[in-house]
Amino acid sequence: MKTKKVDFLRDLYLDWNERMAANPNMSLSDLRSLFDEWEKATLEPENVTYTSDGIAGINSIWAIPINCDKSKVMIFTHGGGFAVGSSSSHRKLAGHVANALNMPALVIDYRRTPEHPFPAQVEDTTEVYKALLSSGFKAKDIVMIGDSAGGNIAVASVLKFRDLGLELPSCVIAFSPWLDMELSGSTIESNADTDALISPPIMKVMTGMFLGGDLSKARDPLANPLYADFRDFPPLYINASGDEVLLDDARRLYSRAKEYGVNVTLSVVDHMQHVFPFLAGREPEVDKELNRLSNWYENLSNIEE
Amino acid sequence: MKTKKVDFLRDLYLDWNERMAANPNMSLSDLRSLFDEWEKATLEPENVTYTSDGIAGINSIWAIPINCDKSKVMIFTHGGGFAVGSSSSHRKLAGHVANALNMPALVIDYRRTPEHPFPAQVEDTTEVYKALLSSGFKAKDIVMIGDSAGGNIAVASVLKFRDLGLELPSCVIAFSPWLDMELSGSTIESNADTDALISPPIMKVMTGMFLGGDLSKARDPLANPLYADFRDFPPLYINASGDEVLLDDARRLYSRAKEYGVNVTLSVVDHMQHVFPFLAGREPEVDKELNRLSNWYENLSNIEE
Repeated sequence: MKTKKVDFLRDLYLDWNERMAANPNMSLSDLRSLFDEWEKATLEPENVTYTSDGIAGINSIWAIPINCDKSKVMIFTHGGGFAVGSSSSHRKLAGHVANALNMPALVIDYRRTPEHPFPAQVEDTTEVYKALLSSGFKAKDIVMIGDSAGGNIAVASVLKFRDLGLELPSCVIAFSPWLDMELSGSTIESNADTDALISPPIMKVMTGMFLGGDLSKARDPLANPLYADFRDFPPLYINASGDEVLLDDARRLYSRAKEYGVNVTLSVVDHMQHVFPFLAGREPEVDKELNRLSNWYENLSNIEE
Repeated sequence: MKTKKVDFLRDLYLDWNERMAANPNMSLSDLRSLFDEWEKATLEPENVTYTSDGIAGINSIWAIPINCDKSKVMIFTHGGGFAVGSSSSHRKLAGHVANALNMPALVIDYRRTPEHPFPAQVEDTTEVYKALLSSGFKAKDIVMIGDSAGGNIAVASVLKFRDLGLELPSCVIAFSPWLDMELSGSTIESNADTDALISPPIMKVMTGMFLGGDLSKARDPLANPLYADFRDFPPLYINASGDEVLLDDARRLYSRAKEYGVNVTLSVVDHMQHVFPFLAGREPEVDKELNRLSNWYENLSNIEE
């Protein structure tokens, strides 16, 4: 297997796992601090300004590329196993995607577990979505995007919007989504050696907190969209690394959506770590991936018009 | 005494002290993560873009207000007892000051203690300063600014530039500077009850790491500018809170500089915490202080021209 000479994300993940192992009783505050170091993986996206907001009562950051199309917006739900990660850890990543899609990104600090188990997260995205619609954004100009657990939230939110009878956003984007709350993916084992971050013990802690201890919810389609009915779901872009534990979640989401006739694209990039777009600006493969995403979105828009 | 109803910075500092007390063997990495939470105190400064750089081999971030005067630049040396804090923790604060002074801020990740004791920090600022001069900036268009230990570095750097015979920057700004490596200030005791962050134990750990265990350096003017000769020193703006442990450092710097005929201003704001400009955007008193700073700088420029 080709090995990367320098992989900032791999080094970061190995360091985190070492520090978590050294301090198994790390407090939730300290754990959140540690995961906020995600932002260090990403170089500053250029020509992006930021504004703090409190839309729908939820702390959030607007990442606004200069001269972008401000009639559009993406709601960015950060990853971190529903418990950690924040608008701070994901600000720069969101800025890079905002540049790629030429629209503002709204990175929201949805309520996290364990204080707020499922379905607090999709309730929050629903409030934000409604607030954006009320403030004049059109559904067709809104994109839902998230990474890891935030990819789950992005997908589940749109399922919920549909069930509520709301007009749907133009598309959904999920980077390395974590969907399967039963932890049954085949790549959990087969990619165990190459994934520097994710392993079953950490996933079990996260699912326990997300489901509030009620494991029967592990098949609730809004907690685990691999069980969802994808009728009328908007176009969906998924990526994952060929080497990550959650690859099979991405593949199964792709197949499930495909069964329901969704316009779905899966981009798998080998020899990368979980949520590799964090390396935007540092790693040519990531800039290529963001280009593919940009082209995909542009083609969608052309088809729609 | 008037008490603030909501003081985000005080709450943050109390939380840090609680977490450090709960985990006295906290690793340096975890401690740095914790102090990077400083950034959470500050709302996003508006109309500022960012660029990652590696000027003079030092990781740094440019915070660039849209439409600012790009012929000018401030070198921002972050606080954190020489050991913690980073361009991440201080990005937003630097962005607010950049807006106030209408010029880019270059926030540098100088080498920190304990890996790199004194004088690594002033060596790094010297390299950055020379690199900016080489790249075409004029000395009179450069401002040195820092907070807490970074205020010490900003002042000491200019003493060093002078000793090296370099042309000097236009002015120096120090927010709540920490200068006295002998910890002899009168407000260490008198403000102990109102300062939520700083106390002698943490200061002793920090001085030990900074001086590399050699306490004889505690009177080296580049480690402790309260012992410095301020001849030919450029205009100096100092602020501090009336309620903080380091108030006396600010006062003594003011007196020392005044003795040498420096054009020096001291702004003391009561009922605030250490490095209160972190509350930019949240706290009217801070926005007023940044206005005072802005006016001070503008008047300087007018006098010079």
